[in-house]
Amino acid sequence: MSQSTPPADALLFDIFGTVVDWRSSIIAELQAFGAARGLKADWAEITDSWRGLYQPSMEEVRSGRRPWTILDVLHRESLDLLLSKHGLDELGEDDRAHLARVWHRLRPWPDVVAGLTRLKTRFIIGTLSNGNVGLLTRMAKNAGLPWDVVLGAETARAYKPMPEAYLSAARLLNIDPGRLMLVAAHNGDLAAAQKHGLQTAFIPRPTEYGPRQSHDFKAEGNWTYVAGDFGKLADQLGCA
Amino acid sequence: MSQSTPPADALLFDIFGTVVDWRSSIIAELQAFGAARGLKADWAEITDSWRGLYQPSMEEVRSGRRPWTILDVLHRESLDLLLSKHGLDELGEDDRAHLARVWHRLRPWPDVVAGLTRLKTRFIIGTLSNGNVGLLTRMAKNAGLPWDVVLGAETARAYKPMPEAYLSAARLLNIDPGRLMLVAAHNGDLAAAQKHGLQTAFIPRPTEYGPRQSHDFKAEGNWTYVAGDFGKLADQLGCA
Repeated sequence: MSQSTPPADALLFDIFGTVVDWRSSIIAELQAFGAARGLKADWAEITDSWRGLYQPSMEEVRSGRRPWTILDVLHRESLDLLLSKHGLDELGEDDRAHLARVWHRLRPWPDVVAGLTRLKTRFIIGTLSNGNVGLLTRMAKNAGLPWDVVLGAETARAYKPMPEAYLSAARLLNIDPGRLMLVAAHNGDLAAAQKHGLQTAFIPRPTEYGPRQSHDFKAEGNWTYVAGDFGKLADQLGCA
Repeated sequence: MSQSTPPADALLFDIFGTVVDWRSSIIAELQAFGAARGLKADWAEITDSWRGLYQPSMEEVRSGRRPWTILDVLHRESLDLLLSKHGLDELGEDDRAHLARVWHRLRPWPDVVAGLTRLKTRFIIGTLSNGNVGLLTRMAKNAGLPWDVVLGAETARAYKPMPEAYLSAARLLNIDPGRLMLVAAHNGDLAAAQKHGLQTAFIPRPTEYGPRQSHDFKAEGNWTYVAGDFGKLADQLGCA
């Protein structure tokens, strides 16, 4: 941190990949579902394809080709496409609704809950995620994530990396963007946040994408902080 | 509760009066401020007048005469009016900004933190307040209020009792209004919530307005629950 940077008042966190291990969580749940139902499929491939449809589905909304639509709906539509492609058309509405909500049940990385608990003693901590409020709230209940506030694309009505996603969070907290820090495992997200005046912290999650991970192994910008995990970030920020 | 009412998934709480004792908190802080500065004034009268300007200031926004304005700004404007009226024009910007934020430092009623902690084990718990997100988030940090989610007028861009204030909370949680419960010490707030399909719980706060309290001593509607305090509500809802 440069000597002239004032301390942050609030730390907001990217969620998918930074806080929760979406890939392992979803593969494990789909495999268990398949085993219980006697369904055979390449669940890892379905999981990776599901996440692969994430950016294209949001881009329909960012571009204005589609009106504001929450991520729960985009996730469900992508799942339906993939079930069809993988010969799983037989699955009914209840199963599909249940599986689409696996994003509410993702597991945090091992350092997360203890690290957030320490960071919460000194800072407002919250989400700054493309997940919708209902998704993020239920995920926090399931995973024990102690957020002070749940913000993101839905409260901004803009998906990251659109400027409004970052600026709206600062406005809702009545905080100068320079006193707000985005914590993320993704250099692109941090670059957008930095462009709009936020402080930045990079936490590598080198296994987020599994064996095919090709990027975000290390910090690629002049971030305010770089730390190995949430506990080390709490150390750097002077939390007990 | 009628036999046919399904259980609620989320409990949202009115804040000023229901969760925090705004009157005693503000009088105590203003008296201490006055004593420290050697300023004499009727601090209880200023406090009651400040709250007296709450509804008229929001009505300017509800009516459309004024564009969306957060409560922190309305509180500050009302304070400036009252300082002038009470001969306290000498107070400078830093003092005024500090005093206006007393609404971030209000103290909870004695039953609140323990009751919310129990309710949180079974329900999503959050705010449904006319306070802005920054105010509610800082109040929760100061008072130890363990919200899962911070919602209200600012996330709805509508002050209670406008319909959108209630309906927006249900939408943001992806929940049918019938599975959402408003907990409040004010019959009027509950009546508006009930009209839009929410479940309701009345908690009396007979000393909220001090010796001049004239209303809301008891339940005046067919509310889903009526309980003496948050602990008794947790009992009725079967929380451990």
